[in-house]
Amino acid sequence: MRCWLCVEYAKYDWEDPLSFESLLTEEEIAIRDTARAFCQARHRTSPFLENLLPRVLEAQRTEEFNHDILPAMGAIGFLGPSIQGYGCAGVSSVAYGLIAREVERVDSGYRSTSSVQSSLVMHPINEYGSDAQKEKYLPRLAKGEIIGCFGLTEPNHGSDPAGMETVAEEVDGGFVLNGAKTWITNAPVADLFVIWARCKWDDKVRGFLLEKGMKGLSAPAIKHKLALRCSLTGSIFIDGVRVGHDALLPKAKGLSAPFGCLNNARFGISWGAIGALEDCIHRTRAYALERHQFQRPLASFQLVQKKLIDAQTEAVLGLHASLQVGRLKDAGKLAPEMISMVKRNNCGKALEHTRRVLDILGGNACSDEYHVGRHVANLQVVNTYEGECTCDIHTLILGKAMTGIQAFAN
Amino acid sequence: MRCWLCVEYAKYDWEDPLSFESLLTEEEIAIRDTARAFCQARHRTSPFLENLLPRVLEAQRTEEFNHDILPAMGAIGFLGPSIQGYGCAGVSSVAYGLIAREVERVDSGYRSTSSVQSSLVMHPINEYGSDAQKEKYLPRLAKGEIIGCFGLTEPNHGSDPAGMETVAEEVDGGFVLNGAKTWITNAPVADLFVIWARCKWDDKVRGFLLEKGMKGLSAPAIKHKLALRCSLTGSIFIDGVRVGHDALLPKAKGLSAPFGCLNNARFGISWGAIGALEDCIHRTRAYALERHQFQRPLASFQLVQKKLIDAQTEAVLGLHASLQVGRLKDAGKLAPEMISMVKRNNCGKALEHTRRVLDILGGNACSDEYHVGRHVANLQVVNTYEGECTCDIHTLILGKAMTGIQAFAN
Amino acid sequence: MRCWLCVEYAKYDWEDPLSFESLLTEEEIAIRDTARAFCQARHRTSPFLENLLPRVLEAQRTEEFNHDILPAMGAIGFLGPSIQGYGCAGVSSVAYGLIAREVERVDSGYRSTSSVQSSLVMHPINEYGSDAQKEKYLPRLAKGEIIGCFGLTEPNHGSDPAGMETVAEEVDGGFVLNGAKTWITNAPVADLFVIWARCKWDDKVRGFLLEKGMKGLSAPAIKHKLALRCSLTGSIFIDGVRVGHDALLPKAKGLSAPFGCLNNARFGISWGAIGALEDCIHRTRAYALERHQFQRPLASFQLVQKKLIDAQTEAVLGLHASLQVGRLKDAGKLAPEMISMVKRNNCGKALEHTRRVLDILGGNACSDEYHVGRHVANLQVVNTYEGECTCDIHTLILGKAMTGIQAFAN
Amino acid sequence: MRCWLCVEYAKYDWEDPLSFESLLTEEEIAIRDTARAFCQARHRTSPFLENLLPRVLEAQRTEEFNHDILPAMGAIGFLGPSIQGYGCAGVSSVAYGLIAREVERVDSGYRSTSSVQSSLVMHPINEYGSDAQKEKYLPRLAKGEIIGCFGLTEPNHGSDPAGMETVAEEVDGGFVLNGAKTWITNAPVADLFVIWARCKWDDKVRGFLLEKGMKGLSAPAIKHKLALRCSLTGSIFIDGVRVGHDALLPKAKGLSAPFGCLNNARFGISWGAIGALEDCIHRTRAYALERHQFQRPLASFQLVQKKLIDAQTEAVLGLHASLQVGRLKDAGKLAPEMISMVKRNNCGKALEHTRRVLDILGGNACSDEYHVGRHVANLQVVNTYEGECTCDIHTLILGKAMTGIQAFAN
Repeated sequence: MRCWLCVEYAKYDWEDPLSFESLLTEEEIAIRDTARAFCQARHRTSPFLENLLPRVLEAQRTEEFNHDILPAMGAIGFLGPSIQGYGCAGVSSVAYGLIAREVERVDSGYRSTSSVQSSLVMHPINEYGSDAQKEKYLPRLAKGEIIGCFGLTEPNHGSDPAGMETVAEEVDGGFVLNGAKTWITNAPVADLFVIWARCKWDDKVRGFLLEKGMKGLSAPAIKHKLALRCSLTGSIFIDGVRVGHDALLPKAKGLSAPFGCLNNARFGISWGAIGALEDCIHRTRAYALERHQFQRPLASFQLVQKKLIDAQTEAVLGLHASLQVGRLKDAGKLAPEMISMVKRNNCGKALEHTRRVLDILGGNACSDEYHVGRHVANLQVVNTYEGECTCDIHTLILGKAMTGIQAFAN
Repeated sequence: MRCWLCVEYAKYDWEDPLSFESLLTEEEIAIRDTARAFCQARHRTSPFLENLLPRVLEAQRTEEFNHDILPAMGAIGFLGPSIQGYGCAGVSSVAYGLIAREVERVDSGYRSTSSVQSSLVMHPINEYGSDAQKEKYLPRLAKGEIIGCFGLTEPNHGSDPAGMETVAEEVDGGFVLNGAKTWITNAPVADLFVIWARCKWDDKVRGFLLEKGMKGLSAPAIKHKLALRCSLTGSIFIDGVRVGHDALLPKAKGLSAPFGCLNNARFGISWGAIGALEDCIHRTRAYALERHQFQRPLASFQLVQKKLIDAQTEAVLGLHASLQVGRLKDAGKLAPEMISMVKRNNCGKALEHTRRVLDILGGNACSDEYHVGRHVANLQVVNTYEGECTCDIHTLILGKAMTGIQAFAN
Repeated sequence: MRCWLCVEYAKYDWEDPLSFESLLTEEEIAIRDTARAFCQARHRTSPFLENLLPRVLEAQRTEEFNHDILPAMGAIGFLGPSIQGYGCAGVSSVAYGLIAREVERVDSGYRSTSSVQSSLVMHPINEYGSDAQKEKYLPRLAKGEIIGCFGLTEPNHGSDPAGMETVAEEVDGGFVLNGAKTWITNAPVADLFVIWARCKWDDKVRGFLLEKGMKGLSAPAIKHKLALRCSLTGSIFIDGVRVGHDALLPKAKGLSAPFGCLNNARFGISWGAIGALEDCIHRTRAYALERHQFQRPLASFQLVQKKLIDAQTEAVLGLHASLQVGRLKDAGKLAPEMISMVKRNNCGKALEHTRRVLDILGGNACSDEYHVGRHVANLQVVNTYEGECTCDIHTLILGKAMTGIQAFAN
Repeated sequence: MRCWLCVEYAKYDWEDPLSFESLLTEEEIAIRDTARAFCQARHRTSPFLENLLPRVLEAQRTEEFNHDILPAMGAIGFLGPSIQGYGCAGVSSVAYGLIAREVERVDSGYRSTSSVQSSLVMHPINEYGSDAQKEKYLPRLAKGEIIGCFGLTEPNHGSDPAGMETVAEEVDGGFVLNGAKTWITNAPVADLFVIWARCKWDDKVRGFLLEKGMKGLSAPAIKHKLALRCSLTGSIFIDGVRVGHDALLPKAKGLSAPFGCLNNARFGISWGAIGALEDCIHRTRAYALERHQFQRPLASFQLVQKKLIDAQTEAVLGLHASLQVGRLKDAGKLAPEMISMVKRNNCGKALEHTRRVLDILGGNACSDEYHVGRHVANLQVVNTYEGECTCDIHTLILGKAMTGIQAFAN
């Protein structure tokens, strides 16, 4: 090795300041490029594919769900991408993260829709389901032919599912479930419902697979949302729904199962939030270069450059951290606290800095055609997903890991 | 005076930590109470009055303008309230601020609608208009029978009206105006347009009063806004509009006239932003007291209390500062930089802290029924009103006053 | 009243943006001017007076106490200034605040020294002492002939004096005290010690007046401090100290007495912190105007102007808020939570913004001749005075007032 | 690869949240461990070695230089560690960074002393010097037998060396230099001075090697520093100093040479700042666990856990980013903007978060025995090193790279 002090300098690439790409495999780069092309619709990779960016404004304005999107995602292998078999792509967790980043670069709602399908529906079936359940559901979920949702959060219990009130009771030939869930992504259009319930016989939480149309099951949409308008959200009412024994996820017992699902979803969110932040940086940079004030581009103002650079630095740091977590995941060295760290950091920073660069747009911030305001509204919710003050919850999860003291109830 | 160290303690009122009310006159308190009752619809003060809070969700969802509101405001003296005569109430500037605070406690869009009518339409007519113009327009504007708008900002010039491209040319019998304005509050429903144009004969900016229906004048609405959805916004296209000599505001020459209007509007905004912040504090406090997690109210968490207290402290400081500016205004001792200071501070702090308390709502942040998310979205725009990066502009106005160096073009 | 919209503009005074001075009485202005002259030594008001600014660097460097300072302060009425009689000045609490602001404009350590004398020694004697105690001590304390200190904080109990371990026991002819105190300002040079102890006979906390030289009483200095080097700090060891019955403060029973003293001190601190911040603003503004980079003054950089304006805005808001609290105090309408609000806000903001403007000095930040770095180090301690995380304690005091829920032990 | 969703969880190590160690080579781990042992004096690796932590308080208090330190560092290969030959260790740039992190974990001043020797003295000689110069100086510098300093910054030019006033003139037999430098680390004890001067014959900046004792050369110490008291700082006065032709660094022409040196130093600083932050996190965590208030450890308070976790997250992100930059350096793929990004981020975050965790110490913050306050004071200067507002300068360097617009003079 020659003296590092004597290095010739390389050219700086402002779009990839610390050479993130050099840390990816060729396959990962190809997946990222396909995902970006699909999401941005720079080119259509196949006549059958539908894309995201061209329709995001319409979805934002109408809160209407586009039923083509999940099949299109399925067609290129975006659904359950890291599952082996059942028609899934079987790629690395880093590739999964790269896809989430590209989808959320368009909209956090689209990323939510696909995260739920992959991490919160396909994952628990693959992980905790019987072979018959896998055979029955995974191939169709992977193709986007059917849509799934994940019923954990309840009206009176946000970050604290230990207080779950939905119950399952064993009866002749199966189970009866009663309860209610709320803020459930995909619920109003779901064909398959993964419902978590407290089992009366042993007070343990288990998962059940319910299907649309079952008697006593309804999922009305929550409308007029201020954010995540591109993904559907609903309540689920479970009023004496009867299912067979085959509806039970046999290998899930206790809250560790749904928490494992959430951890997997959060891993993807940590990537997605950076994608949204990057989109805001690129858009506001372009705006600042084009727009003039006092006879010079906005981009020449120190106060504008500072906003852009602060934002970009966080995007870079967060992206590299998520990559490291992904590599550790693939190597079987993941600890859940790692996900708490990158989810909390990346969502918090994305929210903070998309807000700051939004200022660059001035009054145009309130036009949806500039896209940044939409990201800002979305990220507020992404940051506090899964109940109240979730960023605080991850603070306390990490705090417990660091100090040994649980301060949730403090 | 006895030793201050020996004071008996008074009871602390968390809703008014530093006894703001003790600094108001009885008349001002009465005006505030009327305004609050009107806006919150706690009681209807007259069968003719329409109120704000009960309809804000509908307006937010549909972006539709409610034509009853300005007449209702006019009926209780909220329009042009500090103007003497012409049916206006003639109250103090502090009373004007108190009204703005109550209106924006419901929605920044409603406050925008009324600010424009009062500060940006009635004020310039009263200040720069002829007696005939005053007689013709002020009484009807004060009653809310006609709606006005203020056309200053242009598509390519946000914070920098010196680059104005709209022009007026003198012709036989009057003037011809050409140009375009954008992001104009009230424009799509305006009966009266105060249009600022560069006069070709001496290159000075002057104001002209245009009326709806004039040939060449159109004002299409800008829809799908992400914020301020309760107030209408539009562009104005002025395509060879001919007006008589009586359409010119005779006493306004140069940009100081529209800037004076904006200063007056900003004074009200400094009060209004605090009202919005206070509403968010009250709503999230109530939520935190009612909502439980880990078997205790959210309000018992240190991290939640900190968010509330940080927010409230800023609301109190900003309110007292605006009061002082109002007193100086009424005493004829106002400097425009004072308004820059309180507008910049109060809007910036309101935005920052409404965002922070919004976190308390967790996933409910994205439901419009909790109101806080709507305030947050509104305040983003209120903070950068009047063109790009307005909060930065006020920084530099104050910076110039402090250092003697103009850094706008730096 | 004429329309406020039509006001002629006044000239903006960047040194007093919202006309603070117009809210003071002539007497208060005169006291402030005297205090500023004394502290800054712009002129010597009497041959006997010693001043602060010219000696602050020497004190900072050596940590040596200047015994002339308290007598000099006493000579112009700065000690116990709001006490009536006993040679005290008997001025308003606002005047007291104005003096604290001027003293801390030079150094927080000097302000600490005098705060302790006035609020923590003279105040409890005046409030809780017998006539004999007042006659014996107050005139000499007022003249600065003797120095007092306040022994409340103990080694193992910072913000939580309820855990007090120092005890008093009744014996023949008086009391015996045992215990230890730490971080006691003035202790190493104190002639008079106000010691708070838990009384064994009823478990109540009471105050005792101890004098230097008593057997078993020692107060070694804590040296090598990183901040507040201009005031002396020490521990107090109380090893079987015997005092007569006349050493007991007869009217103080329970922690409300020392807490009342601290509240009074904090009122002064809320003013003092603003003085320190103002000094930093003035010094860095002057530096930024004089120092050039890239062929122009630092003050012409947007990023520098923003730092200055953010800092100044907070100084103005904090100052006006303290004034309002002072007026309420003098009117007998003070609640202790008001002091928590202004103490917490003003110290926190002073710390944050002195740090930010310190950046303007670049490498010169580490030279003590620029004074700002010294203020920054001092304010860190002023912000967390009185035990651990005091700014957090005030958050929770206010949080309790707002929510009704005590979260100290949360 | 198996499905990443199904990973078994690894145990979380709060001291290394994202498995930084797994990314180091065995050699790098060994170097880090040696460095830590040396710096912390957990064990003495040789009777000849002197260590850092046990003497840091004394150095802090007296501002006296310990002449044993550089030889001790030299003995274990810490000086010029990445240079090949001349008795240097020839290790990777990552190893160099790991050493800087360990040294600054004790004190930024010690890191400054060694950074100057390695990056600012040995590096330019190795890079721009003649063979004779290398032979003459490098071995003795590597052993710490002689001390070097780097004379670039001038009294009137902080971040802007283009305005350099020190000049060199060619004369019979060599050169005459005149000028002055300031804020030069190591200068008062330096044997060797790398002096940058503007050459009169072609107006280019070049480096000259001056030795202690030359006529006209003096380097008085700057005392009473508020920070970096463990490293010596001085001015350099160059009053007609005559040197031979062999004193010129032959391969350095223009500012790119000293700027290259600074970039190398900044690379090390980006690591060092994280070391200081980590030390503060560990110390305040231990304090928070041990210290009780309201009958429970400080570490159980939510507000305390949040401070610790925010700080730790930044330490982790910054460390991984510096590692990536180091790997790119060693691979010859470094761009200077990368160093701007990690230097700016890491120093800024270290400063911000050491300040926040310092609050945990309450009043003990002002005792030097807790070490954290010292780090805080040091990092203020480390953050603005090399002239005024350096963190802003790096903002603008990155801003230029991102937007193509130079805003230094804006």
